[in-house]
Amino acid sequence: MNRNELIAEIKKKKSYLCVGLDTDLTKIPLHLQSHSSAIFQFNKAIIDATKEFCVGYKINTAFYEVHGVKGWQALEETVAYIPSTHFKIADAKRGDIGNTSAQYAKTFFETYSFDAVTVAPYMGEDSIRPFLDYKNKFTIVLGLTSNKGSYDFEYLKTDSGDFVYERIIKKVSAWGTPENIMFVAGATQAQELKTIRRIIPDNFLLIPGIGAQGGSLKEVSKHGLTRDCGLLANASRAIIFASGKEDFADAAANVAKEYRQEMQSYLI
Amino acid sequence: MNRNELIAEIKKKKSYLCVGLDTDLTKIPLHLQSHSSAIFQFNKAIIDATKEFCVGYKINTAFYEVHGVKGWQALEETVAYIPSTHFKIADAKRGDIGNTSAQYAKTFFETYSFDAVTVAPYMGEDSIRPFLDYKNKFTIVLGLTSNKGSYDFEYLKTDSGDFVYERIIKKVSAWGTPENIMFVAGATQAQELKTIRRIIPDNFLLIPGIGAQGGSLKEVSKHGLTRDCGLLANASRAIIFASGKEDFADAAANVAKEYRQEMQSYLI
Repeated sequence: MNRNELIAEIKKKKSYLCVGLDTDLTKIPLHLQSHSSAIFQFNKAIIDATKEFCVGYKINTAFYEVHGVKGWQALEETVAYIPSTHFKIADAKRGDIGNTSAQYAKTFFETYSFDAVTVAPYMGEDSIRPFLDYKNKFTIVLGLTSNKGSYDFEYLKTDSGDFVYERIIKKVSAWGTPENIMFVAGATQAQELKTIRRIIPDNFLLIPGIGAQGGSLKEVSKHGLTRDCGLLANASRAIIFASGKEDFADAAANVAKEYRQEMQSYLI
Repeated sequence: MNRNELIAEIKKKKSYLCVGLDTDLTKIPLHLQSHSSAIFQFNKAIIDATKEFCVGYKINTAFYEVHGVKGWQALEETVAYIPSTHFKIADAKRGDIGNTSAQYAKTFFETYSFDAVTVAPYMGEDSIRPFLDYKNKFTIVLGLTSNKGSYDFEYLKTDSGDFVYERIIKKVSAWGTPENIMFVAGATQAQELKTIRRIIPDNFLLIPGIGAQGGSLKEVSKHGLTRDCGLLANASRAIIFASGKEDFADAAANVAKEYRQEMQSYLI
């Protein structure tokens, strides 16, 4: 899915919601836990219930890898099940030297047909370039994250007075275009979105912290929205674990619908 | 394997060589490529041929993930095949918010029984802490990497005049001890090892760049060795792809043996 197609989906649905499939096996309803493909069955029900309200799904690979081969099977089935109308993000935070990053890019863009993958910037240009070489795919680089640890190094001041995260966004954004680079921008720090928007007025931002991580959708939308929307706001636990009982899919749909309603009011 | 056991193995073998199993399916000998478990068969032969000369194996997950479920099967078989006398590193460069990093730690330390995993520092303390919570396991944090891209952000000057990579090593090393933290230190920049050793005189360093990446083992050893050795020098392609023909295992053994010989002279 390219940028124009994503924007068209957002406009059609009046939603920039992304549902995070952080499917922690210990948190899914009891009646599913004994199922031989419990994670996929859970994801399938969540996708069916929420696809009307969201434009994308984000799969955090950690929750699949932890189950070894079985987990990767669940990941494979889940990616295949997501409708082609939805933007598919591998939240993998990979990054290595060039020839190794090329393998990671191939993993997520070819072996699995994700539209985008999250990438850690620390190792610099040759660690990111192999992802950018794919046409009609997005590299989502960690800019500012939503966790407490972001203060350790992302907020280090450089000798020219800006923060490390700002310098990274400036430099990385020049390696590609808004057609192939997005950035992760932590929603718990909405004021910083103003700074980020000054550096990159056009790139899409993936906002990971709506919901459980405490970010305000209103603040994020106020400072982050562009004429092309320019935002993908992700909620994981707040949606998929809205209920821990048999009604989990309905509960997820209700929360997703509420987010969509709020988004509709900001998009007008 | 804990630090004392690792040091004992190094002293016994007079080697601090780590063999990197970056098993690129397109580069393994033709006669193995059609085998249904080609990657594992190749790794098995490499392990049998080199285990006498090295103290550890480093598995770069990218080369396994790219094959999806089949790749993770090969990874699983390979980890299980590495003798318990050898230090097992998952070169995965993971890192995410706390609850997600906990899943990655569980993946590599419990689902697979690695002794160590490489971790990217960008997201700060809560992204690294879950790895450190494991006893007798090592978190190997990216300090200075050996690629060209290291100049983009690792060498950013901070407002106090030191480089970002130095600040990271200083801060991260205080979150644990030499019993549970190692750092990646790029071997192509041996002079910087002096700087790194000033900051962390005792932590083990994983040197990724011996061989194909052009690092000098002599320089690295001169500046990096401590009384406990303190180094794990990794070679991947230079060993495992020393020959692309049927004699690949013998060729790998010969190169590994040469490295060990050189290391013996530095350890005395």
